[in-house]
Amino acid sequence: MSHLTINLTLEEIYDLAKTALLSQGANEENAAAIANTVTIAERDGAISHGLFRIPGYIVGLQSKKVVGTATPEIEEVTPIIFRCDAKNGYAPLTHEHCLPPLIDAAKKFGLAAVAIQNSHHFAALWPEVEKMSEAGLIGLTTVSYLPWVAPAGGKTPIFGTNPMAFSWPRAGKNPVVIDMATSSMAMGEVMIAARDGYEVPLGTGLSESGELTTDAAEIVKGVLLPFGGHKGSALALMVELLSGPLVGETFSYETQERDKAEEGPARGGQFILAISPDILSGKNTSEQTDRFFEKYDAIEGARTPGARRHKNRENSGPRSVNADLVKTIEQLRTDGLIT
Amino acid sequence: MSHLTINLTLEEIYDLAKTALLSQGANEENAAAIANTVTIAERDGAISHGLFRIPGYIVGLQSKKVVGTATPEIEEVTPIIFRCDAKNGYAPLTHEHCLPPLIDAAKKFGLAAVAIQNSHHFAALWPEVEKMSEAGLIGLTTVSYLPWVAPAGGKTPIFGTNPMAFSWPRAGKNPVVIDMATSSMAMGEVMIAARDGYEVPLGTGLSESGELTTDAAEIVKGVLLPFGGHKGSALALMVELLSGPLVGETFSYETQERDKAEEGPARGGQFILAISPDILSGKNTSEQTDRFFEKYDAIEGARTPGARRHKNRENSGPRSVNADLVKTIEQLRTDGLIT
Repeated sequence: MSHLTINLTLEEIYDLAKTALLSQGANEENAAAIANTVTIAERDGAISHGLFRIPGYIVGLQSKKVVGTATPEIEEVTPIIFRCDAKNGYAPLTHEHCLPPLIDAAKKFGLAAVAIQNSHHFAALWPEVEKMSEAGLIGLTTVSYLPWVAPAGGKTPIFGTNPMAFSWPRAGKNPVVIDMATSSMAMGEVMIAARDGYEVPLGTGLSESGELTTDAAEIVKGVLLPFGGHKGSALALMVELLSGPLVGETFSYETQERDKAEEGPARGGQFILAISPDILSGKNTSEQTDRFFEKYDAIEGARTPGARRHKNRENSGPRSVNADLVKTIEQLRTDGLIT
Repeated sequence: MSHLTINLTLEEIYDLAKTALLSQGANEENAAAIANTVTIAERDGAISHGLFRIPGYIVGLQSKKVVGTATPEIEEVTPIIFRCDAKNGYAPLTHEHCLPPLIDAAKKFGLAAVAIQNSHHFAALWPEVEKMSEAGLIGLTTVSYLPWVAPAGGKTPIFGTNPMAFSWPRAGKNPVVIDMATSSMAMGEVMIAARDGYEVPLGTGLSESGELTTDAAEIVKGVLLPFGGHKGSALALMVELLSGPLVGETFSYETQERDKAEEGPARGGQFILAISPDILSGKNTSEQTDRFFEKYDAIEGARTPGARRHKNRENSGPRSVNADLVKTIEQLRTDGLIT
């Protein structure tokens, strides 16, 4: 794939994604929900979750593993716990269904959670948690995936890249949004590095033979490592437990066993938690939090998580997209085949 | 302080801690609760939270900053949210009061949380989360403290060492317990290294002048760094938000401002969350989880968080304790003065 790019408006990105998904059998609701997550990723400059994902979404539809016409079902287990069966569809439509009752319950009782089952999650996590923070809530979510990551000290993969996202609401401002793989790098980033042929830092992962390497393509064939040694590895374990057995779903290795011989993103679980700072604290802490971030932002070298995306978001103009990728997606729409 | 040790039974450790606290004005309930956390830390080989902490507990009582006769007050904000005013006492008695209603609510509704205010937390976090897992629940808790940690990329401290603990219940087995500072090392460990004169890894912290150093005593005067670079730093920020404004309490820097000119551990907040896997998953996941841990434990080099403490716990015999420390505590009990 070359480095040539073309400019597309956000509307063009949305239409390209949506029409491609519709042409592959996704219904209106699912295609719109997926196209939206792809578009907001491109809007925010998060290209590894933008149009780059559309061929993968389509592979899942073509293999019939993912149901493009799924309608999620929600069960209210207690007034604050919802179990949501994604019915083997992609995650975005499930989120559109389950976030409103989750938000309502958390605003009423202070906490609420959703256990998502049978979902194919193939996007970033920040869209879910930002939605909760737009409603004044803390959002926390985790997913696991296929076993690509070895625990610290080991060479055998057992964890997914196991991302977690956390969002803190700020009145009249963008929320503070952490969205990070507990692996040293997200697999999407390693895949982009492999595609574009640049090196990754030593410590990112091991080759197929268990050696440290800076070659992203070797790591895609081998194993990723957690970030931050044994502490990061402990967090990967926590995410594995929260996204699997807590929500009645599979560990990463079980996801792989269930998934074998199929193509496209695997089916698994997701944990989503909403917390109301207003109810827990018993007060409005906006001014206090603003003072903290003034001090934080004044520290040279400190990054505010999510700020780079929010900065990109201010630009309403066209986005620069890989030209070969656009051509691939356009062909999919016409020919219906993955090339 | 020398490296000489003496052997004390767990009963002797408990009595030494409790009588020392009683001699300094703590009442029966508070002295017993603190002595218990100190004793279970020695039992589990977690010496930086064992008798080593007693002089610090007593400094707080002597400065009158900490109320040794405090009776915590609990308010039920919603059926699943409790706000607990520790009334400027040490945390252990507060936990004895607030964990039972928290556990009951989580077992009924699936989730529950406690916002602790005005608490002096000077212990490890695993006692709280293990208690929740003994009741079949996931425990999650965070505290912040004084600003000793700079964000990744910066040199100015703004975070506490900001530990978080997570515990996963296992039927008929010890829970899996993560208890980790989001700093590269807990300040208690750095203090022990400084006391005993051994080096810490490069990257643990910066000296007073902002340089990397392996000298623990230099770091005690300077600043700690988060573990795991920008990702660990993001988690330190998350813990700062959960332990401060979420629970109606102070950021680490505000804790310091409020605390200045006083001696002993500072007053602050704590967030505690309980989650029921039975309710969220809708099933019993013990066998599934046991199979996962069989695979995990079989990976050479992988550590199960908490396992070392649980192994130490099997030994019911006497513990080897620093002799000078025991002498100091005995003197405190007799003379009432910190030497």
